[in-house]
Amino acid sequence: MPTSPNLVSRPRIAVSALYFSRVVIVGVGLIGGSLARALKGANAVGTVVGVGRSRASLDKAIALGVIDEAATLEQAAKGASLIVLCAPVAQTFALLHALEPHLEAGTIVTDAGSTKSDVIMAAKTALGDKVSQFVPGHPIAGRELNGVEAALADLYVGKKTILCPLQENLRDDVAAVRAMWETAGAECHVMSAVQHDAVFAAVSHLPHLLSYALVAQVANAEDGPLKLGFAGGGFRDFTRIAASSPEMWRDIFLSNRDAMLRELGTYQTILAHLKKQIEAGDGEALERVLRRASEARLEWGARQATATDVEP
Amino acid sequence: MPTSPNLVSRPRIAVSALYFSRVVIVGVGLIGGSLARALKGANAVGTVVGVGRSRASLDKAIALGVIDEAATLEQAAKGASLIVLCAPVAQTFALLHALEPHLEAGTIVTDAGSTKSDVIMAAKTALGDKVSQFVPGHPIAGRELNGVEAALADLYVGKKTILCPLQENLRDDVAAVRAMWETAGAECHVMSAVQHDAVFAAVSHLPHLLSYALVAQVANAEDGPLKLGFAGGGFRDFTRIAASSPEMWRDIFLSNRDAMLRELGTYQTILAHLKKQIEAGDGEALERVLRRASEARLEWGARQATATDVEP
Repeated sequence: MPTSPNLVSRPRIAVSALYFSRVVIVGVGLIGGSLARALKGANAVGTVVGVGRSRASLDKAIALGVIDEAATLEQAAKGASLIVLCAPVAQTFALLHALEPHLEAGTIVTDAGSTKSDVIMAAKTALGDKVSQFVPGHPIAGRELNGVEAALADLYVGKKTILCPLQENLRDDVAAVRAMWETAGAECHVMSAVQHDAVFAAVSHLPHLLSYALVAQVANAEDGPLKLGFAGGGFRDFTRIAASSPEMWRDIFLSNRDAMLRELGTYQTILAHLKKQIEAGDGEALERVLRRASEARLEWGARQATATDVEP
Repeated sequence: MPTSPNLVSRPRIAVSALYFSRVVIVGVGLIGGSLARALKGANAVGTVVGVGRSRASLDKAIALGVIDEAATLEQAAKGASLIVLCAPVAQTFALLHALEPHLEAGTIVTDAGSTKSDVIMAAKTALGDKVSQFVPGHPIAGRELNGVEAALADLYVGKKTILCPLQENLRDDVAAVRAMWETAGAECHVMSAVQHDAVFAAVSHLPHLLSYALVAQVANAEDGPLKLGFAGGGFRDFTRIAASSPEMWRDIFLSNRDAMLRELGTYQTILAHLKKQIEAGDGEALERVLRRASEARLEWGARQATATDVEP
């Protein structure tokens, strides 16, 4: 990656003591609001500009001190050091397409989307050559609560953020985005978009789909109310993630389609094997699978300290 | 159900102020030990006799005051008011078969197994005409911990116990088993064995199988360690039940085979539908399923007070 001439000629960002003169947060909810609070708390930002679909929610963000001002994307882009997309992934193309004519050469763009291959494809299509200014990212943090009221300055402390830099990115731009997340308290990891999407399809997206599917099955059964009346702690934990936002997860399943279908296909094969073992009464084979899984889960659990992060 | 001549001629049980002169607990672990502690705490029992495969664990149960004495099943059956099977369901036939020649006419037998159709079939085969003395039951309670050290006098307080009485049972025997669980603090529900097995296949056994299957998939993947390194809160909750005992769940899956296969078949159909919707990019249909599930889960969650019970 070449070094950025823009950083030299237009010092909107000082990487040593990280400082962004003007940060634009597109989608000021839990994720964007928490980032704004973290950067403000670290004195790493001059002005935070919020962009969003709801004027009422932007006013609330101003009242809460999360952002300094609200603007349209076009207005906000003027003189921006950094633009962070925190809106649902399905809006990425439309947002970048609207941004492109107003995106200045010295501005870095990044995102917080839960999927990366599709975001990168949208960015390449929408931004053309300017895609070099777009550094794809994904902070692994969340809460049960949504909206700007739920935003916390320390949401990202001790959490992981994944960066999937493009070959086109300037090294300094990637460093600035990394420094931004580190300023917010996160630990940054770099991997390819394909690897990212496979990892999260397996450990986050597929479990969500499976949990939704089980609740759908029980709720739609003729004797659903009776069944739900006897559901206990195992059901509660297994289905907690099925209470998540249907729109958000619809978008994630569709935007991570290829990796989802691969993981789902593998899962269907495993279920078919287990079904055969139960049909055949093959306790030995069945126990082997269960024991391997149980040991892996216990080992994983022991390695986790007291993780309290919530997907996506 | 006819009334019991035994209760009149041999008052080993006084139902009004519940009192069993001699209770035999077969399998003195968490479930059996907690029942023993609860009945002792309520002064509802004279002597508690423990039966088990491990002498060391029975000695520990005596030292902890959970049981008063240890005996073989044959010795224990002499003069017993009540025999409660708390061993793994797969042992039901062998235990009842060994018990049958020694089972006295005035003794009630019950169990705490997580499946009921297969337990009843085992009981009918093993006990012959004496099956009238067997009242099938299933307390819905548990802890993360196992073994007699984990036994709690209040494990069943506020929990549900399901009874699946047989046509052959005497009304007074069913009433005595119900009174026993109520004395331990549980709320009793009566349903057929078929209904019981369908309910628990759906809300407990299937989720366990699905959770084991997901962990098996991730742990066996080539990039399993990387994936597990980024697994978060959703994965943690979804897979908590995959850390459960592989032997116990192998037995439950096999002993509830018919209901499991039915529920698993339905689940496979739902997954296939969801897969098609993702393949086709049909966001509207996908969101409909997710929304229905999410609403049902939120509604269920709101109805649950602070349930802390653990399957099975």
